[in-house]
Amino acid sequence: MSFVPADPGYAQRVRESFARQGAMRTLGASLDVVSPGHVVIVLRHKAELSQQHGFMHAGMLTAALDSACGFAAFSLMPADASVLSVEFKVNLLAPAQGPWLRCEGRVIKAGRTISVVEGRALQHDGGGPERLVATMTATMMTVQGRPDVRG
Amino acid sequence: MSFVPADPGYAQRVRESFARQGAMRTLGASLDVVSPGHVVIVLRHKAELSQQHGFMHAGMLTAALDSACGFAAFSLMPADASVLSVEFKVNLLAPAQGPWLRCEGRVIKAGRTISVVEGRALQHDGGGPERLVATMTATMMTVQGRPDVRG
Amino acid sequence: MSFVPADPGYAQRVRESFARQGAMRTLGASLDVVSPGHVVIVLRHKAELSQQHGFMHAGMLTAALDSACGFAAFSLMPADASVLSVEFKVNLLAPAQGPWLRCEGRVIKAGRTISVVEGRALQHDGGGPERLVATMTATMMTVQGRPDVRG
Amino acid sequence: MSFVPADPGYAQRVRESFARQGAMRTLGASLDVVSPGHVVIVLRHKAELSQQHGFMHAGMLTAALDSACGFAAFSLMPADASVLSVEFKVNLLAPAQGPWLRCEGRVIKAGRTISVVEGRALQHDGGGPERLVATMTATMMTVQGRPDVRG
Repeated sequence: MSFVPADPGYAQRVRESFARQGAMRTLGASLDVVSPGHVVIVLRHKAELSQQHGFMHAGMLTAALDSACGFAAFSLMPADASVLSVEFKVNLLAPAQGPWLRCEGRVIKAGRTISVVEGRALQHDGGGPERLVATMTATMMTVQGRPDVRG
Repeated sequence: MSFVPADPGYAQRVRESFARQGAMRTLGASLDVVSPGHVVIVLRHKAELSQQHGFMHAGMLTAALDSACGFAAFSLMPADASVLSVEFKVNLLAPAQGPWLRCEGRVIKAGRTISVVEGRALQHDGGGPERLVATMTATMMTVQGRPDVRG
Repeated sequence: MSFVPADPGYAQRVRESFARQGAMRTLGASLDVVSPGHVVIVLRHKAELSQQHGFMHAGMLTAALDSACGFAAFSLMPADASVLSVEFKVNLLAPAQGPWLRCEGRVIKAGRTISVVEGRALQHDGGGPERLVATMTATMMTVQGRPDVRG
Repeated sequence: MSFVPADPGYAQRVRESFARQGAMRTLGASLDVVSPGHVVIVLRHKAELSQQHGFMHAGMLTAALDSACGFAAFSLMPADASVLSVEFKVNLLAPAQGPWLRCEGRVIKAGRTISVVEGRALQHDGGGPERLVATMTATMMTVQGRPDVRG
């Protein structure tokens, strides 16, 4: 799907909001693609993100997917809006061992109040093929007029 | 529901597996309750876990809930089994600002292969009433005979 | 949780809306409890609702759970509002063979726009103990000012 | 993704199982495509499937999506296996008014025990463009050696 952003300054707005997420620094995640309704976040597996078998903890992967999906929705919102995650659902398809993880969010419905975003986490070793390790379906909400949850 | 654990050493097994999760150290989370089919993990909000408005990132909260649910299921599994998250779904009911978060997982079905666990995240300030901020429903899988994913 | 309905005529409003659902007639479902934030729908298994093994089709059970959850949320809404299902997630815990199914929805968050409702489907034979066969977590939306989706 | 079916007689097996679902007759649904890991079910909206505003009830649509996803998984299973829905999550993107609904399931992971399937429901009027009205992510389980749940 192709979307026209309500705010031409959407990319700057997404990058500033991403920079305010302490959680993304903790993950060592960085913003890769920011386009209308589509955001990609990349991160590298490390011991601080692991579960008991050494793989990346599903919750840590979820954090990157949630941010990718949330910012994908946010990219289409008006300049004075902020985004809140209403809910998400994650399926884990294979152990996430990295070393690289690419997490992308794509809006499939951009409503006035509710947006629906699909997330995909793919792992690769920097060169070879990617492997799908997790999917997310997320419901995001446009919030306006609440200064406590500004963009 | 009340469950009889297959392995009398379940609590030790859960505590050792928890200690191997680098992600829980990153969260600053600790195991509180470990009883058959019921696990509670506690953590304190901090800047390293935040989203763009200063609240706890939904993914970080999900990591604690996923561990609580996974270990609740794991507590009922045979001694030689390990647990894998198949999928989970999280609803965010209120911004998680802490300062304290209590994340609990309770098994509602303990099957031979598939277990279903309900999670709740409640916040409090160390004294006053708790407030429900998130729910999880998780599907967990018992894995046997795979040394790479040992408990 | 205990709720005070915004509209004292909520029960009548729920019953009229339920009566307009052709799907509930097809299921042979009837409204049992209607209280603020809590609705119970009962139905009996029959061949018209079956999947390939003779059990009740998970989708048919979902229809009853979705209605129970939707009307539970609707019971707390203003008199001029209608309810739409945003999304739901269902876990199937045991084959639904009935003969009786009791599907209940309980609101756990009643927001201005978004409500979260938990559903449970329990089966029994008219006398013995009940068995939990499915759970739902549903996100419901309050819609106002859209005549096409009135109550 | 492209899959090689374990059982060359998969299509016949899917069609026979579909024919045993009383629920599909109630919906007036028919099997359209049956290929390895991909199944399409079509149905027409009618009053017997409606919710309170006259649209198709989300649960009835879910029944068609669940069958499409379940049979997509089933098409890749061994000849002596049966399929059970473990859980599914549905997002409703637009009111389902039909008149025609095309519900497809596509396997994204075919595991030995657990398969993950994505569902899409699209509506159209027999000629014009299709519109996406609902998505499903479903977890399906391969069951062997249980005569009560034979395919």
